[in-house]
Amino acid sequence: MFHDRPVFPRGFRCASRNVGLKPNAKDLAVFASDVDANAAAVFTRNHFPGAPVIVGREIMQHGRLRGIVVNSKVSNVATGQQGIAKARRMAAAAARELDTTPERVLVSSTGVIGVPLPIDIIERGIDGIAAELQSDPLVGAEGIMTTDRHPKALSMSVGDATITWVAKGSGMIEPNMATMLVYIFTDAAFDAVSLDRMLRAAVDVSFNMLSVDTDTSTSDTCAILANGLAGTVDEKAFLEALIAGCTRMTEILARDGEGAMRMIRASVRGALDTSEARRVAKSLVNSPLVKTMVAGADPNVGRLLMAVGKCFDCTIRPATTDAWINGHAVVVGGQRLDFEDDVVRKTLTSDVVDLEVSLGVGNGEARAYGCDLTAGYVEENAAYYSS
Amino acid sequence: MFHDRPVFPRGFRCASRNVGLKPNAKDLAVFASDVDANAAAVFTRNHFPGAPVIVGREIMQHGRLRGIVVNSKVSNVATGQQGIAKARRMAAAAARELDTTPERVLVSSTGVIGVPLPIDIIERGIDGIAAELQSDPLVGAEGIMTTDRHPKALSMSVGDATITWVAKGSGMIEPNMATMLVYIFTDAAFDAVSLDRMLRAAVDVSFNMLSVDTDTSTSDTCAILANGLAGTVDEKAFLEALIAGCTRMTEILARDGEGAMRMIRASVRGALDTSEARRVAKSLVNSPLVKTMVAGADPNVGRLLMAVGKCFDCTIRPATTDAWINGHAVVVGGQRLDFEDDVVRKTLTSDVVDLEVSLGVGNGEARAYGCDLTAGYVEENAAYYSS
Repeated sequence: MFHDRPVFPRGFRCASRNVGLKPNAKDLAVFASDVDANAAAVFTRNHFPGAPVIVGREIMQHGRLRGIVVNSKVSNVATGQQGIAKARRMAAAAARELDTTPERVLVSSTGVIGVPLPIDIIERGIDGIAAELQSDPLVGAEGIMTTDRHPKALSMSVGDATITWVAKGSGMIEPNMATMLVYIFTDAAFDAVSLDRMLRAAVDVSFNMLSVDTDTSTSDTCAILANGLAGTVDEKAFLEALIAGCTRMTEILARDGEGAMRMIRASVRGALDTSEARRVAKSLVNSPLVKTMVAGADPNVGRLLMAVGKCFDCTIRPATTDAWINGHAVVVGGQRLDFEDDVVRKTLTSDVVDLEVSLGVGNGEARAYGCDLTAGYVEENAAYYSS
Repeated sequence: MFHDRPVFPRGFRCASRNVGLKPNAKDLAVFASDVDANAAAVFTRNHFPGAPVIVGREIMQHGRLRGIVVNSKVSNVATGQQGIAKARRMAAAAARELDTTPERVLVSSTGVIGVPLPIDIIERGIDGIAAELQSDPLVGAEGIMTTDRHPKALSMSVGDATITWVAKGSGMIEPNMATMLVYIFTDAAFDAVSLDRMLRAAVDVSFNMLSVDTDTSTSDTCAILANGLAGTVDEKAFLEALIAGCTRMTEILARDGEGAMRMIRASVRGALDTSEARRVAKSLVNSPLVKTMVAGADPNVGRLLMAVGKCFDCTIRPATTDAWINGHAVVVGGQRLDFEDDVVRKTLTSDVVDLEVSLGVGNGEARAYGCDLTAGYVEENAAYYSS
């Protein structure tokens, strides 16, 4: 379903550079459409949104974008009016390159919070980048990485159109009504209102169900651009593809969580309703003791019950609660089964650890995505600012 | 205010033993009053309470206790009707030693969840323990340790009476309407209803504001026993002392959080109300990125704003938000100050890291207690079950 190697839809290109924010690695990317695209976006709900998010909310009122410019290393958050002025200068610099106006350029900045954005370096770095625009989405993905271990892009066909995802995200990730940085490009024709509706539906079951560390970034942005060059596409098929791609990208982000060795996928069914299923699933992927159990491949399965049971406001009945790890039953009727330790221990060492819980009190279902908690996470984040 | 070395109030004694649950360390403790004591207790809100909690709720209906029996290593949680029968047998064994009935003995078990309680070993271990009852509270504290690095007890005088706290707790700690294992003994005379009211008031601002790792134990129990041997004490003075001791014990527990090097104390003022102040303070001590910042003594202070800002449902205004670390201003009006990195870095290496946040939107205040997140926490919990 997904292309072996990601490609762009018709009319989209990107470029990335090292402009001097990082010592050597790429730290700036530009994504461009040959023509104006209809667009929609969702942003972080954190009360301290970055300057690019504040400016981005204004820009998205128009529902039209020609391009996106992103820098990594410095997030331009908690920087006041000066930060906002700098975000506007960054949009203007990219607009000159893309032969459009600043209102058609979405800006993102990701990295350390509270440090002034070196806008002069960024303006100089953007200068002339239009000449380098090319067709490999991974080139753009490279420019937006922070602690990511690899650039993240994927694409798929739907009808005659293509959808392409480019993303970053590794820590400070529990999105809520938005996500880390994810840009979605398509040549299908949809108006901005339809895009907004479909984007929210897809984000709700994918990126919003991801948590690396319960910490909600101040820079989360997820935008979709549809330039229409492939004409109309069946909306139902498009939405299905959009959800599939967002879910796949969510899994890619979970696997690359800071310090992570394993992805955790928590599926809850039989909850009172969807909202309770989502809360229980999130509780499982967010529990440090569940996460360290997976890191250590230690079948301390009582912790699953602890994590379910601490959802105080949900309807939980021990007698109807069952649980499985990678298909092996470990809890029945709220009691730990007398399973074979070694079998469960072995299954916990796989790349993907599926935790399933059946609550037996209703029909609510949800799935959440996370990763194990390792000493690598602690190391990475004990010196992030200084390194 | 606190005694240099903890002592028991009149008429209380304890004993502890290795009964064979652990290879060598002590794993069982008995606390006893010479006469029946009025008593109150609060328990975990986890939906999977251990068998001792289920039985304990019954026993506390009577409001009278002669003693407490506790084992460590195995928690007797998720063990069904058999677990409940075993908790009753454990109470009965201790009652025989203390020359009372099982309804006068509170039982606690702490340790791995979901493993059958070896009740025969425990019954044999309790046999004859009455002869070893003595007056040092630390002896009892030793018998209830799990991953604790040291036994925890303290005492203070109030009027002619004494209050003594004995506790354990190191991981799986975000109590809610209850706490880890804390036993409070006093020779002051109060009825069970007054004890219950005072206990809830004290727990609410102390143990309920503690979080080592956001994970709420299935065994949390906090009980107070008042045997009246010192006669009546002024209720206001007693409540003040009770709160002071519970707060001190909360700090002792935070400092000994699993893997912790430093205690984090988050004080929030100027919140819309107390409830919002509590939520913001908890968000600060629970953020993995704030906790790793403290572990690394890395002044990445933007993370404080992130952790405040992710309290979506609280009233947060960036323009009125200020923050301090150990008294050093780091954020004013929602913007990071241009402070001296080295000064803040140095202050982050102290044993206690005070985070203060002023929200400027009301008069709500709260303080939460936590600890840093280190590789030691991950190591300890990646193999807890197997080790």
